[in-house]
Amino acid sequence: MKTLITGGGGFLGQKLAKALAEVGEVRGEKITSLTLCDVVPPAKVDASFPVQTVTADISDKDAAAKLFADNPDVIWHLAAVVSGAAEADLDLGIRVNLFGTLNILEAARHSGVAAGRAPIVIYASSCAVHGGEEPEVIVDGVELNPQTSYGAQKAMGELLLNDYSRRGLIDGRGLRLPTVSIRPGKANAAASSFMSSIFRDTLQGNKSNCPVPRDFSVWHTAPRTMIHNLKHAAEIDGAAFGANRNLNLPGRTDSIGDMIDAMTSVAGPEAEALITWDTDPVIEAIVVGWRAFYLTNKGLSLGFKADDSFEDSVRFFLEDDIEKAAG
Amino acid sequence: MKTLITGGGGFLGQKLAKALAEVGEVRGEKITSLTLCDVVPPAKVDASFPVQTVTADISDKDAAAKLFADNPDVIWHLAAVVSGAAEADLDLGIRVNLFGTLNILEAARHSGVAAGRAPIVIYASSCAVHGGEEPEVIVDGVELNPQTSYGAQKAMGELLLNDYSRRGLIDGRGLRLPTVSIRPGKANAAASSFMSSIFRDTLQGNKSNCPVPRDFSVWHTAPRTMIHNLKHAAEIDGAAFGANRNLNLPGRTDSIGDMIDAMTSVAGPEAEALITWDTDPVIEAIVVGWRAFYLTNKGLSLGFKADDSFEDSVRFFLEDDIEKAAG
Repeated sequence: MKTLITGGGGFLGQKLAKALAEVGEVRGEKITSLTLCDVVPPAKVDASFPVQTVTADISDKDAAAKLFADNPDVIWHLAAVVSGAAEADLDLGIRVNLFGTLNILEAARHSGVAAGRAPIVIYASSCAVHGGEEPEVIVDGVELNPQTSYGAQKAMGELLLNDYSRRGLIDGRGLRLPTVSIRPGKANAAASSFMSSIFRDTLQGNKSNCPVPRDFSVWHTAPRTMIHNLKHAAEIDGAAFGANRNLNLPGRTDSIGDMIDAMTSVAGPEAEALITWDTDPVIEAIVVGWRAFYLTNKGLSLGFKADDSFEDSVRFFLEDDIEKAAG
Repeated sequence: MKTLITGGGGFLGQKLAKALAEVGEVRGEKITSLTLCDVVPPAKVDASFPVQTVTADISDKDAAAKLFADNPDVIWHLAAVVSGAAEADLDLGIRVNLFGTLNILEAARHSGVAAGRAPIVIYASSCAVHGGEEPEVIVDGVELNPQTSYGAQKAMGELLLNDYSRRGLIDGRGLRLPTVSIRPGKANAAASSFMSSIFRDTLQGNKSNCPVPRDFSVWHTAPRTMIHNLKHAAEIDGAAFGANRNLNLPGRTDSIGDMIDAMTSVAGPEAEALITWDTDPVIEAIVVGWRAFYLTNKGLSLGFKADDSFEDSVRFFLEDDIEKAAG
């Protein structure tokens, strides 16, 4: 199986690449190649199969087509301009999140014709497609009513993914990702960045600001669980998704306060003392429009998973991601 | 008020232009100009204000921008590749229905900046956005799950319209049009074309084929009522649409058989005798995915209207549209 990850230099792309290297197969067949593509040079990942890194901007149609030169069988399309950046720059978000996704689907379509089969495309959508005139508790089948440009662009990608799948051009699977917490690395332009940094940075001995109150609830998943779900999406039968290839991934709802208490119970009280509480109206305006409560029956029935506790997420972070030299 | 109609050469665009000429004002202000744009030269419409006709392809970004040279205040964006054509040619549908709509919204955005206010954009979406994993009876707030490329492209336009409105770049109002019956003119590439032609053509003395059974139910509106709704969309306050600027327009549900009986009761039995009943699996596959039953509370609460009966629709056709020389 030839595999491709867009956004392959990002933390999810890198973790997914390592997980693929570890397991060595997809859908019961050996992985024969992996291409990691990103807009900045992706880090190389060790594997028993050839791993190619490519620096390319998917908003360039020709660059996107080139990624499909070897007609990959399974594509994880993770590349995106994140929520805060897409809200700050509408044109950038449309270029990368809408046109970039269209370019990837078009490349998959034409590569699939050349290879004589519809490639599997796993698309990272987002819970940011939900908001506005939706019920407080999101269930399968509510109208997408994104209140950010990022969410609108992700929802448009879902519609393309589903239509290309319905036409048999690709075998698409769209996953609406909960906020990933605790995300490793640095703070970024995602409005949800603080939902990781108040744990990650303080556990690494640094101060971090929480721009929302303690009782703010978050719909979240640990990176380890997210990687399981991204891999799992390739394993199941596309037809099992039914007439909509996009679904809400399972996750957990916890308040920021409960998440901090979980961190303290696992790692001691030092980290919490490093959190500051300066509200940020710009971030709050974005994240308050996201939904925190979900019933993900479709996702659960297809075998996608949620975490058992945020304590687990803290342990996963300490095992997988903490930067030992920090502090 | 400077006004613009894309798809201004189509039957709805022409009827809307005539209705604007007749009333002479929008939102309590005199209309000072009307531009009718279409991909083929639109027919001129007589009015007390200047009417300009432009032949342009909105999928060309520069051509779309030129339509906004005089910074129109109210734009009806009706231009589209219809359902059957968009299903037959994915690239064409994406080019016109997605990129064309984006080009119109971008032109409206930049024209609005130049004019110092967000222009009103009324967008003709479609009940084809509904289907698939949706309930049999469509209510406000169900997830859009289009099962045609046309529906998917229209739904993407809705997301753009809503996001541009949320950002204050335009003042958008998206209307999901029921099938228009009885549409005047000729049969076209819309899969719903027969829903008009079995009445229009037979009332004009010509044979017409019905590709679905008598008990097939249709969600429909008469042209006269649709024009009322398209005009009404400009009159109400954009904020009244709430967090989603798109809504299901009111309409009527009738079976084809009941509609034929209504035609007979108004116009006599001659027309029905001209209907043939050869099933068409291609058309049936498309239209069977559309929904026929709706509760349009949001649309009704905002003052949009439905017909009282299909008998009325037949009378409207005989008064407004029948081609006297036909037969």
